[in-house]
Amino acid sequence: MNNFEFQCGTKMIFGKGTEQRVGEELKSFGASRVLFVYGGSSIKKSGLYDRVVKSLTDAGLYFEELAGVVPNPRVSLVRRGISICREKGIDFLLAVGGGSVIDTCKAMSFGVYYKEDVWDLISGKVRPGTQRLPVATILTLPAAGSEESDSCVISDETISVKTGFGSPLMRPVFSIMNPELTYTLPPYQTACGCMDMMSHAMERYFSHTENVEMTDRVTEGILATVIHNLPIALEKPDDYAARAEIMLCGTWAQNDMTGCGREQDWFNHGLEHQISGFYDIAHGAGLAISTPAWMEMLCEKEQCVPKLAQYAVRVWNVPENPEDAAETAKEGVKKLRSLLRAAGLPQSLGEVGIGTERFEEIADNMTDGGSHTCGAFYPFGKKDILELLNRME
Amino acid sequence: MNNFEFQCGTKMIFGKGTEQRVGEELKSFGASRVLFVYGGSSIKKSGLYDRVVKSLTDAGLYFEELAGVVPNPRVSLVRRGISICREKGIDFLLAVGGGSVIDTCKAMSFGVYYKEDVWDLISGKVRPGTQRLPVATILTLPAAGSEESDSCVISDETISVKTGFGSPLMRPVFSIMNPELTYTLPPYQTACGCMDMMSHAMERYFSHTENVEMTDRVTEGILATVIHNLPIALEKPDDYAARAEIMLCGTWAQNDMTGCGREQDWFNHGLEHQISGFYDIAHGAGLAISTPAWMEMLCEKEQCVPKLAQYAVRVWNVPENPEDAAETAKEGVKKLRSLLRAAGLPQSLGEVGIGTERFEEIADNMTDGGSHTCGAFYPFGKKDILELLNRME
Repeated sequence: MNNFEFQCGTKMIFGKGTEQRVGEELKSFGASRVLFVYGGSSIKKSGLYDRVVKSLTDAGLYFEELAGVVPNPRVSLVRRGISICREKGIDFLLAVGGGSVIDTCKAMSFGVYYKEDVWDLISGKVRPGTQRLPVATILTLPAAGSEESDSCVISDETISVKTGFGSPLMRPVFSIMNPELTYTLPPYQTACGCMDMMSHAMERYFSHTENVEMTDRVTEGILATVIHNLPIALEKPDDYAARAEIMLCGTWAQNDMTGCGREQDWFNHGLEHQISGFYDIAHGAGLAISTPAWMEMLCEKEQCVPKLAQYAVRVWNVPENPEDAAETAKEGVKKLRSLLRAAGLPQSLGEVGIGTERFEEIADNMTDGGSHTCGAFYPFGKKDILELLNRME
Repeated sequence: MNNFEFQCGTKMIFGKGTEQRVGEELKSFGASRVLFVYGGSSIKKSGLYDRVVKSLTDAGLYFEELAGVVPNPRVSLVRRGISICREKGIDFLLAVGGGSVIDTCKAMSFGVYYKEDVWDLISGKVRPGTQRLPVATILTLPAAGSEESDSCVISDETISVKTGFGSPLMRPVFSIMNPELTYTLPPYQTACGCMDMMSHAMERYFSHTENVEMTDRVTEGILATVIHNLPIALEKPDDYAARAEIMLCGTWAQNDMTGCGREQDWFNHGLEHQISGFYDIAHGAGLAISTPAWMEMLCEKEQCVPKLAQYAVRVWNVPENPEDAAETAKEGVKKLRSLLRAAGLPQSLGEVGIGTERFEEIADNMTDGGSHTCGAFYPFGKKDILELLNRME
């Protein structure tokens, strides 16, 4: 186990009806002028919008609204939000939505105090300071884990770049998590969200750091719980228990509790950010295409086999083949593929209309033209990335 | 899953050599006048005392010392600490030790701002307010989990009462956790500590709340990890990996992450507090005597069998007996007993010199003379408690 620091002070307010407390909670954290940020019309259709407005009004809070956050959220809207905050003297940001809405607020929260263009912070040109607006969330899409995480991902649509930044001071101060709010999610989004949280768990799990037994077991627990509950939620979208387990898993997969004391990988996220920078596909769909292919390739790399076999046995209950760990490992990947297929997630780039035309560019971007490798569990050079992309085709 | 709130903002600073950062960390949290609280001579023998003093001095901090905290820490020392804080204008409490030292600081931290006697807060006569001194810790004994928990337990030696209080504002602001500092723990203390953390996990795990899959799995992970690493740490006290896993488990078992969304039990802790109020035995030893006996008794209660069988299968890898869940459950208890015995922990009250003379009084205290029950997983009336005490004899 490596030395580490961990701190996550986000207050989780979890359960039925909890969104009605948002106004009082904001006030108890000192808010007086709130910017209420959301995506499109779905929160209006579901009645959530009205409940939030009522709670803010009942609490006597002044608020402005900013709608229009889209998946792979755009820096243009972040800039607009920053202007509103400055003009209206906003002192608290309220994100109502999924990772895209929350990440938009996180970027704004630091951007308000940065005098130049916020892209400098997002792109890593300038490190964030300590000044920021507090962010609270009402989560409607369990996936990104942004409701407790210390980072955000934003796209500049004009240059096809999707990238992110973080700070220990970026975690939301509180997050309201009502699983009932996820009953109306389309099945595809439910499945994409589960793929995203499984990936967050796996990016940490697949590591060569030794003696990380406790965090391994928590991660295996997260994976097994998502695997068990995703089919239930797809079959019966208003199954409270399944929706609640999935929502809790999404947070714990990404608040970095499971990353304590270990080297992390993040290759699949890096690759997916490249792909969804060029093509506007759902993040979870991109991960569903790359992850099993990545695993299959690593089942052929001796140093990666033991952990992949442990994953197969503990997460998927694959019987251990004592003669051939790689076979055990491959059985785990097969089970993952069949879960994803049954959940309606794509398994190849072709299925989402992506051809080979950008493979070279993607591999170059990830390795600076072949000058370095990417990922820690297995370091991918340019050639490896091209091989993987061809397997994903 | 029940509605819940969870917030734990303690900064965990984990790993080799981390105690050397204590002065700088305190300063970064705004400390200027520190009360350094510890137990006896063990931190002087080990050199930890000198390293702490050097770090505080290097950081330019003023500090006072208060030594003499004993196991089952006493309110008399809490009162002395409060006087020192007031006289010397202390603004930060630093606990260097295990749960007893940390709990002493926690009680002091609220007591400083309470004008009457601190026992009013400890005994629950008066609810704690919001004013308190910040507490930081350097943990030397993984057991109580007080390094992140929101409660403390203090004894009034003059009236043989051991009780506690809590507040969401009681969690330490940071805890330094260096597993190397636990190499010199006597084997008995290592074992008692592991029993205590297993009990914290089990007090939450054994619950009738349905649909708590994720938290069940984390708890099973904590238990399995302690079970695996305790014998290693006893065999080889300077095994860093085993010491690190145990230390991390102790914190996660008690920061209430695994208690999210469920009814909790706490019968064994209640019973042990009674016993160690009368007899000065180690908390972990008391739990090692009561817990297996409690489980054996509950293996005979139909409503408790399914969860006890799940525990046996998932934590102890007991093969499931599909014909007889109670048999499966009993196998789990046998395995626990053999772990505890091998670790040198007592398995009966007789072994620690406790007779039957106070049984009636203990059962009366726990049930207000038989007027209510105790515990949630199985509600123990006075008669049940007497039966259990007889089984523990």
